[in-house]
Amino acid sequence: MKKVGIIGLGLIGGSFAISIREQFNVVEIIGLDLSQSHREQALQKGLIDEVFDLDDLSVLRSCDLVFLAVPVTVICELLNKVLDVADYNTLVLDAGSTKKEICKLVENHPKRSQFLACHPIAGTEFSGPTAAIHDLFARKIQIICEFDKTRADLAQKALDLFEGMQMKIRYMDPVMHDKHLAYVSHLSHISSFMLGKTVMQLEPDEKNIFDMAGSGFESTVRLAKSSPEMWAPIFIQNKENVIDSLERYIQNLEQFKENLIQENEAFIRTEMKDINSIKSILNRIPTNNKSQ
Amino acid sequence: MKKVGIIGLGLIGGSFAISIREQFNVVEIIGLDLSQSHREQALQKGLIDEVFDLDDLSVLRSCDLVFLAVPVTVICELLNKVLDVADYNTLVLDAGSTKKEICKLVENHPKRSQFLACHPIAGTEFSGPTAAIHDLFARKIQIICEFDKTRADLAQKALDLFEGMQMKIRYMDPVMHDKHLAYVSHLSHISSFMLGKTVMQLEPDEKNIFDMAGSGFESTVRLAKSSPEMWAPIFIQNKENVIDSLERYIQNLEQFKENLIQENEAFIRTEMKDINSIKSILNRIPTNNKSQ
Repeated sequence: MKKVGIIGLGLIGGSFAISIREQFNVVEIIGLDLSQSHREQALQKGLIDEVFDLDDLSVLRSCDLVFLAVPVTVICELLNKVLDVADYNTLVLDAGSTKKEICKLVENHPKRSQFLACHPIAGTEFSGPTAAIHDLFARKIQIICEFDKTRADLAQKALDLFEGMQMKIRYMDPVMHDKHLAYVSHLSHISSFMLGKTVMQLEPDEKNIFDMAGSGFESTVRLAKSSPEMWAPIFIQNKENVIDSLERYIQNLEQFKENLIQENEAFIRTEMKDINSIKSILNRIPTNNKSQ
Repeated sequence: MKKVGIIGLGLIGGSFAISIREQFNVVEIIGLDLSQSHREQALQKGLIDEVFDLDDLSVLRSCDLVFLAVPVTVICELLNKVLDVADYNTLVLDAGSTKKEICKLVENHPKRSQFLACHPIAGTEFSGPTAAIHDLFARKIQIICEFDKTRADLAQKALDLFEGMQMKIRYMDPVMHDKHLAYVSHLSHISSFMLGKTVMQLEPDEKNIFDMAGSGFESTVRLAKSSPEMWAPIFIQNKENVIDSLERYIQNLEQFKENLIQENEAFIRTEMKDINSIKSILNRIPTNNKSQ
């Protein structure tokens, strides 16, 4: 690996740059970001060696690897253009949190086999190049979709890279990917954002929120710090699954409320006890992203 | 302080015992808990020196301090009985997460002035004596209600104790306490429990939950590990405020869903950006309970 191009110099792109440097210390990394402060911070932090412009994508031709870590709508805009300029040995990866639309969009591109559709399950609620950390991907899941559509030698290059990052691979169909992520991730973000909104509406006095946040609010609302630029497009691209999960969530809240109105303590206790079983599932999760 | 009685040897009662020992190393601590394993663990961990029984509350007469750290319904059952047996210099404290009903219940007791209504904003999602930690209360808020109804010398004893624990005091009316806590804390717990339920319904395959939980679910669902024995009575005692906040929350979720159906990206972005301002409020919160 001699030259790498990274599109999007935020938390994911920046952390990817750090991991690449750790594995290949002579690599040259060029980076693209629409935000000037992101470009400057990425250069200053040594994440990248040089910046390049959106109207100069042709510089990516000489890259061994191009990594797209931008909002999913921007991946959709850029992916085919990146493949257009890619050299025969250029591997193109993305990190989009939706996969169906991205895979569909690229399916007829003559260089489809140079693309590997990825989704690293890694992140914190912080964003931007300053949030980049060196072990963001270690021991995390990398979901790969449509693996067999990628040329074998390039796919192997990607797997070697992820192994170097200590990632665990899971293969998934893009349609199923979007369904699972809506349930487990996207709904969590919406529930957290709406909790933040509700509490700010009901508690206009910020001091009360601050003083009492340790009583549960703070961990539950953590995701409400997430970037709207990244998340609004995800919700919209995965609209159908997200709406399904939101409807089920609202239904469960309504049922809980009704039982509370009836003071049906037996129901409430049994319900909570059943849900407590989530402990046994969660206790096996790596804790890197909890230390934020 | 020579002798202390603790009713409820869980996370709160156990951590309180540790703090008491740190401040007064010759103190004798006696403890009551309905769970045999809690009693054994508390003795084994050295949290208490001796256990006592529910039908033997009279042993509390010789205590300088009695601390009630049991579910709010049990506080309501026991508080007047504890005051009945209290000596003139016995200070009685509680740690209940609701305050209105507790304060009302005790208002006509002849020894009302020996009671101080408290709510330490401290906890983790873990429970039981084994979860007790030595600095659970350090730098946390202690809410005190109806301070002026407590005899001055006993109130001062409590303040000295909390100062020794490095707690920050806030005085609050019990009715307002229950309102604020419903918004900031109780709603968070319900949203988290219902999120856990929804995800388990939609994702019957636990491996998918486990693999993807790092994508936001894990922190948002943390409170769904909380104890039903403690929380069901809180929701019911604070029913009116909890239902108010639940209704507002459901309303916000419905509005978000409608805008998602319409693909109203401008609304969604603006909404999320506004809610992002929660960052500036949360950034000032002590982090002790995040390391769980």
